[in-house]
Amino acid sequence: MHDDVIHDQAIDATDPTSPLRVVVAPDSFKGSATATQVATALAAGARAALGDGADVRAIPFADGGEGTLDAVLDAWGVVAGTCPTTDALGRPVTARYGVSPDGRTVLVEAAEAYGLPLVADGLRPLEATSHGVGTLALAALAAAPKAEEVVLFVGGSATTDGGAGLLDALGVRFLDADGTPVGPGGGGLRDLARVDAAGIDARARHVRWRIACDVDNPLLGRRGAAAVFGPQKGATPDDVTALEAGLTRLADALAAATGRDVRDLPGAGASGGLPAGLSAVLDAELVPGGTLVAEAVGLDAALADADLVLTGEGRLDEQSLHGKVVDTVVRLARPGATVVVVAGGVELTPGQVADAGIAAAFSIAPGPRTLPELSRDAVVELERTAAHVCRLFAAGRDPA
Amino acid sequence: MHDDVIHDQAIDATDPTSPLRVVVAPDSFKGSATATQVATALAAGARAALGDGADVRAIPFADGGEGTLDAVLDAWGVVAGTCPTTDALGRPVTARYGVSPDGRTVLVEAAEAYGLPLVADGLRPLEATSHGVGTLALAALAAAPKAEEVVLFVGGSATTDGGAGLLDALGVRFLDADGTPVGPGGGGLRDLARVDAAGIDARARHVRWRIACDVDNPLLGRRGAAAVFGPQKGATPDDVTALEAGLTRLADALAAATGRDVRDLPGAGASGGLPAGLSAVLDAELVPGGTLVAEAVGLDAALADADLVLTGEGRLDEQSLHGKVVDTVVRLARPGATVVVVAGGVELTPGQVADAGIAAAFSIAPGPRTLPELSRDAVVELERTAAHVCRLFAAGRDPA
Repeated sequence: MHDDVIHDQAIDATDPTSPLRVVVAPDSFKGSATATQVATALAAGARAALGDGADVRAIPFADGGEGTLDAVLDAWGVVAGTCPTTDALGRPVTARYGVSPDGRTVLVEAAEAYGLPLVADGLRPLEATSHGVGTLALAALAAAPKAEEVVLFVGGSATTDGGAGLLDALGVRFLDADGTPVGPGGGGLRDLARVDAAGIDARARHVRWRIACDVDNPLLGRRGAAAVFGPQKGATPDDVTALEAGLTRLADALAAATGRDVRDLPGAGASGGLPAGLSAVLDAELVPGGTLVAEAVGLDAALADADLVLTGEGRLDEQSLHGKVVDTVVRLARPGATVVVVAGGVELTPGQVADAGIAAAFSIAPGPRTLPELSRDAVVELERTAAHVCRLFAAGRDPA
Repeated sequence: MHDDVIHDQAIDATDPTSPLRVVVAPDSFKGSATATQVATALAAGARAALGDGADVRAIPFADGGEGTLDAVLDAWGVVAGTCPTTDALGRPVTARYGVSPDGRTVLVEAAEAYGLPLVADGLRPLEATSHGVGTLALAALAAAPKAEEVVLFVGGSATTDGGAGLLDALGVRFLDADGTPVGPGGGGLRDLARVDAAGIDARARHVRWRIACDVDNPLLGRRGAAAVFGPQKGATPDDVTALEAGLTRLADALAAATGRDVRDLPGAGASGGLPAGLSAVLDAELVPGGTLVAEAVGLDAALADADLVLTGEGRLDEQSLHGKVVDTVVRLARPGATVVVVAGGVELTPGQVADAGIAAAFSIAPGPRTLPELSRDAVVELERTAAHVCRLFAAGRDPA
């Protein structure tokens, strides 16, 4: 299957007789269909409607959040590697990682280790650590000797440790005033006096790190990692105060050790502050998740000559226009392309849709249906809706 | 409002710089919105999406069935005339009729008199008569001295009298062997020996009669008026036998009196056999209902230069493709026009839609919704869906 998910063809974009170029690049429909299932269905509808008069490319997409690893692996046509690591509470888990077909990029979805769902049975916000993410990244690098880059998708964390755990796994030492390693998690950082990065893994230091980040929250303060995201991870108001104190010590120690102050870095407060540590120690770059995924799956190249772009997600709403798949696709599409959204639910007005650079948006609902009915029939209805969209677009393009 | 429902503009169809020409011609959404409400909403969406770059004409449409009178009156921008007449059981009712703005066409929706809902409190299939329809037609003609034509929409009858009641109201005598008028309804026709049309109203004989008819059922036999439609009107198996006997006598007597045998006339079995009597005595012509409505509202002319035609009905299914509004619109649209259906529910596959000459079909559902929710929000969702359809069509037509 994977072989036909992406196929490039040499098409002369200036030739008016060239076929209609359609790129299908949807998100998953959460709870109904994976991005690959959605893309396959939309492409089938487009092909059925347009026949030989069209070149249809299907690229399952993701925004860098949950499901990104699956979408990229599907697009790459490779299977995930797996390794033993630990969850946010230090318990053993098996996590997956990806290696690009050319071996140059390692893909880590951090939630495979520090994910909130893995520890939902007993949240411990002060102790939760990103250590397992570091173990996972090292294993991925070990499996990919040619790797030049680690791309880290970081959503869904149970942690608020500023990335200290991850760095600890890479060989960085977080020490108290006596030179003793501090305890795990953001709570342990309250005792932090000094960071020693001398022992960091050579391979980890050598590669480029990029972190998918779609929020601009700073590490500290009212909009910081502890105050905003801590409560979702089980932190009480007192816990938030403790975590804020730990992260403050971390910022100070990182600045002293590396000369880099991450207090003002936009996005450093994402995912329990993970980007703070990685940025200071490893010069990690924060990049919008959709952009990283688009690069990884070759969407940017595919969109360069597309006439019609079908994207979609379970629900098109205000959030879709901010760093999500739909937003990324609109941003990457060439100016002359027509972008159409196919969604489970369209909760924007036509004006909002138009203002977002989207030509039109349609629900897959063929009539009155319940959410369970729509979820059950999502694949069929996606194919059906894509067929109608493509036929209408083609009718406008090429009047009989 | 009516003044802007139809507006013709002189547009050069060969000028590539002329605006996009959109015609909106929907049926009503039964139980949710009248044809006029639907047309107004679709047109508003089209105008919002296309702005000054389009000429949008809204023509509420109907298929000749229930609601036709309202749709045509709305399109004409005239109010209904009313007159006292009788229902199928001879009880007084006030019925409406239409007169075209030029005074030349009289429009009668027969169900205003002999309609099944009016007598739903006590069906009497043997006695039910179309007499009140004749009274209504005469009143309409009296109110329209310039009228040259009666257009009769005949669906929804409670009667199976072969049109004898209607003709009786016009002055035709239906007599038994003793020369006594027979009793009312199809049951009374069992005593029929002779039809005497000598006393028919001069005006009624002078004008042209056209009957909207979308079925090809014959008057008699297994597919006839009594056997197929009788049970819907309360006829027991014995009643059906009695009605069949009455209609058989009617066919014989009409043939003897007029020289015309209506036994083999396709459609003579519609509406309790009404077309049989009118065809034999008044040379009434049977015409598809949609065609008659299209003529009446000027849709055929409006469609002559349309680029995009939006039509719709509550539910797009197999029935829609046979004599209904959607079918009529597809038939009347010029070959180069793109026809799009906007429906409450789309219950056809894209292949069926395409085979029917429809470019695309979309539900107004913006996501999971119940039928009551969709009905309640129909006008808003119609406008919204039309906007998306028009923007997508325009995007295909005019790539940036």
